[in-house]
Amino acid sequence: MASPSHPPPDHGSNSVETRSPELRKDPVTNRWVIFSPARAKRPSDFKSKSPENPNPKPSSCPFCIGREHECAPEIFRVPVDDPNWRIRVIENLYPALNRNLETQSNQSGTDRSIVGFGFHDVVIEAPVHSIQLSGIDPVGIGDVMIAYRKRIEQIAKHDSISYIQVFKNHGASAGASMSHSHSQIMALPVVPSTVSSRLDGTKDYFEESGKCCLCEAKAKHFVIDESSHFVSVAPYASTFPFEVWIVPKDHSSHFHHLDDVKAVDLGRLLKLMLQKIAKQLNDPPYNYMIHTSPLKVMESQLPYTHWFLQIVPQLSGVGGFEMGTGCYINPVFPEDVAKVLREVSLA
Amino acid sequence: MASPSHPPPDHGSNSVETRSPELRKDPVTNRWVIFSPARAKRPSDFKSKSPENPNPKPSSCPFCIGREHECAPEIFRVPVDDPNWRIRVIENLYPALNRNLETQSNQSGTDRSIVGFGFHDVVIEAPVHSIQLSGIDPVGIGDVMIAYRKRIEQIAKHDSISYIQVFKNHGASAGASMSHSHSQIMALPVVPSTVSSRLDGTKDYFEESGKCCLCEAKAKHFVIDESSHFVSVAPYASTFPFEVWIVPKDHSSHFHHLDDVKAVDLGRLLKLMLQKIAKQLNDPPYNYMIHTSPLKVMESQLPYTHWFLQIVPQLSGVGGFEMGTGCYINPVFPEDVAKVLREVSLA
Repeated sequence: MASPSHPPPDHGSNSVETRSPELRKDPVTNRWVIFSPARAKRPSDFKSKSPENPNPKPSSCPFCIGREHECAPEIFRVPVDDPNWRIRVIENLYPALNRNLETQSNQSGTDRSIVGFGFHDVVIEAPVHSIQLSGIDPVGIGDVMIAYRKRIEQIAKHDSISYIQVFKNHGASAGASMSHSHSQIMALPVVPSTVSSRLDGTKDYFEESGKCCLCEAKAKHFVIDESSHFVSVAPYASTFPFEVWIVPKDHSSHFHHLDDVKAVDLGRLLKLMLQKIAKQLNDPPYNYMIHTSPLKVMESQLPYTHWFLQIVPQLSGVGGFEMGTGCYINPVFPEDVAKVLREVSLA
Repeated sequence: MASPSHPPPDHGSNSVETRSPELRKDPVTNRWVIFSPARAKRPSDFKSKSPENPNPKPSSCPFCIGREHECAPEIFRVPVDDPNWRIRVIENLYPALNRNLETQSNQSGTDRSIVGFGFHDVVIEAPVHSIQLSGIDPVGIGDVMIAYRKRIEQIAKHDSISYIQVFKNHGASAGASMSHSHSQIMALPVVPSTVSSRLDGTKDYFEESGKCCLCEAKAKHFVIDESSHFVSVAPYASTFPFEVWIVPKDHSSHFHHLDDVKAVDLGRLLKLMLQKIAKQLNDPPYNYMIHTSPLKVMESQLPYTHWFLQIVPQLSGVGGFEMGTGCYINPVFPEDVAKVLREVSLA
């Protein structure tokens, strides 16, 4: 970030050129973001410098069908018990948390330290190496969402689990060490800081306005596309360039309340957004995160807790300023991002 | 993070091998960190994969002495008015914030948006391209600290500035686009989220224990080295592998209260830590951040606000889990880091 020799702004026709920098804070992230067009290229000029190799050598990939024996234990597959599976949910071979520590985790140490009980699973999204998530049809992507839901429902039975994070790392610079299309589910014995901070922010908004700030997504953010049950937006105070949120139109606190019909509808809009991002930004590495609510959310919190899916293309690194302040510098205004992504043609 | 195919743990002699994962929370960061030795190499095995090129082509470097005309305006130099300067403080040629918007910044928009008034300066730490900060003698590094202090004192006169972040990005993957040794100073019209969160955490600790948690650094963290006025520690809940904090032994709320004697003493310990990190980790890219207090800190906050300098070698990337939760996975326990860094010999 904040490099003193950032390439000079492109002085071609650029609507943002003359704008002054602006700080924005979104109640959902509860963080200030600096929008700094003086450091920006034209929105249309953003391209990934590290596009994904669509088909790296699959010979050594344990996620490919037929190599199940090289993986950690399977939890379930789709279709159930079918050797010709389309999706597999398995344990992570090198889990960050240990699923066998539950008994101890109640007699945890100080409030500053607890034993590392938790779950760390992998969702293999396709049997064949060459298929990426965005290449699967909406029903198939819906099945991946339903697999997330099913695994969350299983894990939620454990009293010691407080929060479940579903996420996908696509591409090495987005944190993926496996090129076979997959996502991950981590279940934690604590409520992490971004979640508490999000609850604080959305609570304040609710107390001021009487509304859930994510029910207001269409009014308060910049709409890109929508499906029957979801809207995709460039958020008002997007932390990262070309960040996209997919938000349920109807108020819903927890991702795992998603029904099968909405899962396919989500699959359709997620596919569209991933395809537009790939085409516009040169197939960038990306992450997506499903931001849901703590498992034991209080009745009083339900009116202002609303799940959504955040997609972040990896276009910029992080430096000392962001690490020090938690405040990010975004060279592109989301209104410009929404305009660009609305107009991407996949024809 | 959290890659399903992380290289298996080294099964050589390794004290952490048999340890279970553990979650720790530090009052200063107010964030949970997962310590996950199952994903760790031996502490002694950590090496940077992208060591810094000690001497990239200087021919085109505007920060080198004699090319001052290629830079943005100078604010001051050390020694004052000396053509043979050792340090220059200049404006950033592509500032993220605009120093000419102050009058407007008071009539700012909603609580969710304000104009981007602020300062973004660069501190050129040496006149010659081949010199890195860790190669400067302690008095010279102390002069860099004094230059930070002087610039902070100037900026602090502006009523609209709430927080000043000093940071250094060393190496491309740490966010530096210039290889000439430099650091940056950004002054913000808001108090950023990590700072508010730090104040919340240290306040809770103070109310529970009656003590400032950073005055307790030697007791609560893992000591690496110390000088007359500072101690360097591997923090109890270090967010990043081989993260180091340098903490003033005497309670001090603001970095810019540093006197000249302590500045040189800080220079000595900072040099030692940077040299040890470079030798142990193969000259990794790194960031350091000076965590100070908001300019307008309340009297009641003074007992629990204590500045420190955080050094973070860039050894690991960030993925969807960290972005989603704000919770990091650290493969090395800080007690092991402290042991390794204590024993690094620079002879």
